[in-house]
Amino acid sequence: MDFLEIMRERKSCRAYDPSKKVTREELLKIVEAGRLTPSGCNSQPWKFIVVDSPEAKEKLCDALVLENNVSGAPWRHQVPAFILFVEQKAKVMQCVVDHYGNTQRFAQGDLGAACMNMCHQAFSMGLSTCVIGMNDQKKMEKYFGIPEGNEVRLVLAIGHSAEKSSFAKVRKELKEVCSFNFWE
Amino acid sequence: MDFLEIMRERKSCRAYDPSKKVTREELLKIVEAGRLTPSGCNSQPWKFIVVDSPEAKEKLCDALVLENNVSGAPWRHQVPAFILFVEQKAKVMQCVVDHYGNTQRFAQGDLGAACMNMCHQAFSMGLSTCVIGMNDQKKMEKYFGIPEGNEVRLVLAIGHSAEKSSFAKVRKELKEVCSFNFWE
Repeated sequence: MDFLEIMRERKSCRAYDPSKKVTREELLKIVEAGRLTPSGCNSQPWKFIVVDSPEAKEKLCDALVLENNVSGAPWRHQVPAFILFVEQKAKVMQCVVDHYGNTQRFAQGDLGAACMNMCHQAFSMGLSTCVIGMNDQKKMEKYFGIPEGNEVRLVLAIGHSAEKSSFAKVRKELKEVCSFNFWE
Repeated sequence: MDFLEIMRERKSCRAYDPSKKVTREELLKIVEAGRLTPSGCNSQPWKFIVVDSPEAKEKLCDALVLENNVSGAPWRHQVPAFILFVEQKAKVMQCVVDHYGNTQRFAQGDLGAACMNMCHQAFSMGLSTCVIGMNDQKKMEKYFGIPEGNEVRLVLAIGHSAEKSSFAKVRKELKEVCSFNFWE
């Protein structure tokens, strides 16, 4: 399969069928795609917390609500399983610290790549996903025993789609995002 | 194809055959995988600069050298083509700015995902890649006309592998990176 077919077909899903569960076996295959992801200095600066019990999901749904009752995922209560991406202190080469002054220069990009790979793996298993960016860090620490300062960067929703209609992918035109040999 | 096969087989490549070129058509297919990448609030906070001319590649090779003559890519002179990932100011929803205090909360993760997707696309075309994390931002701005402050986050090397031996992927064990419903 040309990988571009996955890029064209896979879409974020914002309606899930709560009657169709995702098994631990399926979740572990998805996590495996994250575990194998390359990272800066191979630091693997991540912890993945799979959330699939009813009690933990209820807590998570609350941690996805922010001030003014805003949530990036109003459809969250129908999701069968989630994965939390927690950024860890990265063990990088000294020259990285010398140049950039910190160890986390690559960490967010690494977590973004790991999450993308889990989306692809879920897609290749017939499952749908959506990345949720916003969360209440303090609630995350309280509900999931995450040590203070270990930031939850992303939350991935996983399940079987219940979307009734499809929509076209909206992206900037090629000329707007790409040039050759010089900034344009 | 199970996506995990790509995750298991694709490896970073640090030796390229300079006699085997990468065509513009191939490069544009790779860029397309980046262009289609999902991003926070669909902000697509990126510019991709493809570097494939001899003059531009020479400049880039210099911009990949840091203080004390350190480079993360001593093999860079053999690479047929590169893509620069320049982070752009992200247009995100107001609630993101309200909660996190800035527009760039998701940008680095988005660029990491776009770069990962380009690696997969190249792999599915029989090409090899390596992500180079460190660069001299000031030289990048000077050599490629990048407006000040538009940070080059990643550089992707693309070409045909000339590696003589293979190596095993080294990753943390599952139990070290994954737990269920609570931090462990």
